[in-house]
Amino acid sequence: METLRADGLESSIAPHLLQADRAPKHRPGTYTPPYPSFSARFGEEVEAVVMAYFGVQVRDADDPALAAALDEIRGEFGEEGGPAYWDRAHYVDVQGYTTIISIAYWDDPAVFEAWYADHGESWTDPSRAAAGIGFFLELVMPSIERFETIFSATDRSEGVAGMAPGFSGMIEEHYYWGSARDRFPVSQGDPMWADGSPTLHVDGPVRTVVLHQNACLIRSGQDITDTGAAERAFYSEQVEPVLQAGMDFLRDEGAAIGCFDNRYMTVLDERNQPTDRTFGMSWWRELSLLEEWAASHPSHLKIYGAGMKHLSSFGPETRLRLYHEITVPTANEQRFVYVGCHDRTGLLRAFA
Amino acid sequence: METLRADGLESSIAPHLLQADRAPKHRPGTYTPPYPSFSARFGEEVEAVVMAYFGVQVRDADDPALAAALDEIRGEFGEEGGPAYWDRAHYVDVQGYTTIISIAYWDDPAVFEAWYADHGESWTDPSRAAAGIGFFLELVMPSIERFETIFSATDRSEGVAGMAPGFSGMIEEHYYWGSARDRFPVSQGDPMWADGSPTLHVDGPVRTVVLHQNACLIRSGQDITDTGAAERAFYSEQVEPVLQAGMDFLRDEGAAIGCFDNRYMTVLDERNQPTDRTFGMSWWRELSLLEEWAASHPSHLKIYGAGMKHLSSFGPETRLRLYHEITVPTANEQRFVYVGCHDRTGLLRAFA
Repeated sequence: METLRADGLESSIAPHLLQADRAPKHRPGTYTPPYPSFSARFGEEVEAVVMAYFGVQVRDADDPALAAALDEIRGEFGEEGGPAYWDRAHYVDVQGYTTIISIAYWDDPAVFEAWYADHGESWTDPSRAAAGIGFFLELVMPSIERFETIFSATDRSEGVAGMAPGFSGMIEEHYYWGSARDRFPVSQGDPMWADGSPTLHVDGPVRTVVLHQNACLIRSGQDITDTGAAERAFYSEQVEPVLQAGMDFLRDEGAAIGCFDNRYMTVLDERNQPTDRTFGMSWWRELSLLEEWAASHPSHLKIYGAGMKHLSSFGPETRLRLYHEITVPTANEQRFVYVGCHDRTGLLRAFA
Repeated sequence: METLRADGLESSIAPHLLQADRAPKHRPGTYTPPYPSFSARFGEEVEAVVMAYFGVQVRDADDPALAAALDEIRGEFGEEGGPAYWDRAHYVDVQGYTTIISIAYWDDPAVFEAWYADHGESWTDPSRAAAGIGFFLELVMPSIERFETIFSATDRSEGVAGMAPGFSGMIEEHYYWGSARDRFPVSQGDPMWADGSPTLHVDGPVRTVVLHQNACLIRSGQDITDTGAAERAFYSEQVEPVLQAGMDFLRDEGAAIGCFDNRYMTVLDERNQPTDRTFGMSWWRELSLLEEWAASHPSHLKIYGAGMKHLSSFGPETRLRLYHEITVPTANEQRFVYVGCHDRTGLLRAFA
């Protein structure tokens, strides 16, 4: 569709998904962002992906049921048809519950569904309610047009990009306000407005949430693994505190601006120990409300300002890695099931 | 096209110009900005307007040729077919030249052209070069789809709105980043990307600039006429200095970010004396570059922050009035002629 620019920039949207009449904010080929960013690239045969958040929630982090649950899902992931990539992250919610989510990605919904029938569905079986701990599955299966990714570097991937065979070259659509929208293939013909509201279905101990059309999920992360002492100190003192404050704002006051929930999580390693990688994941009523917060709310402007200060302070020597993935599923591309969880868990908060 | 909302909000785009499939950032009828704003409304018979900047440039503000020129154009404006509305503004440029521009508006290009042939064309006649002062005409004739206006109050109008019969009700498309674009009727089907570059034609003493397709003009003003002592002091101490700094930045360093020229002007009264009304007018390579500056450049974020602080400090008691008009003409809807002006005048700066 578009030829590669002399300066090597290309569209975040993969060539086979580009439309001739698309209208991003800048004419393709004319905008040069001030630093490089990249998007994950999937094979042309990938029509949709699966993002499955298998969560376990415990009052006491030392509860042996937690370790058992983590071992269980790890085992299921290893079975035939298991995820192409998965990772695991931890946080403690405002109610004091430890939550660990095993986040698994597939690049073929049919493979997922077959695996799920044999190995996944039991995670939220009604019988789990007797365990005295909480289990949930937060699942979206967006078509390839309905999510976008951005990475500050390509030598390590996270999240849905973990199963992608590679990355784009340097992309045009980043840095300016509105660029996340321009990275969605579906944005070429659809403003992605929300339609409807979340609904709650209670069936004995199982609570199911059905999200409306065009709700919005973001997983937005940072990785300080490779930073030296000076950069790590700068991040810890100048960036992390405002990031934490912004995450707390979304968690505690986000409902008023269209954010259903926010979890500020730490990625765990193979032994379930914390790493130097963190991310926020939040659910929004629609993309435009996430855009609004990012563009104008003081809690995000401080994060943005601190991040820019970090990047400009260390320049090409920066070892901080940044990435995010944003997904806007249809009303059919999703499944949210909670068993034994407290009333302020995930999307249940929209009804609490 | 759209029914009036229960809360009284309506689209900035007049009903007869709304398209069924338009895709502003927010679904029509769902967004409520935090304070009211309004757009000028023209009659449905108005297909295009004329914005004509008749400038005179002198080394010495006391040069009698200046007063004579001002009287002359005032007289011409009073002739048959003259402007529906006009005002006049003053500034001193970086080179020390006093410039006074008589800005005239018509709501029918045919009426303007007839008037211009008899009364306007002589303003930039080659013979003017002998006068020892500069004359220029900066003219755009946008179709009704190719400009947008916004006002913080409706009991006084300025600029192109001065000839409009009235205002819209409270509009939806403001406050969020990208809302100016959404207010353009043409944005419903056109991203308004720049195409080409300005060209300069020299014919003896007359220099003519032809702008490319989708260049962008903004006139953005403020009026403290009705402020009390406390609000006036706040504006003078907290707002005006950062506004001045931002205007200076655009004038002196704007070229690097796509701003051809910026004039920070004071409106003059009937006796050519300064009023409490000021505005910036600037020419941009395209709308997206103006959006970029507004959304992310420190010089504008400070203006925005100071303005928001002002509005929130005085709330409903605010008497500061704000407005702007933005125009994105086609390559055919314009005419720029300079006679006897120095090389850094207006759009000539793009070639200096």
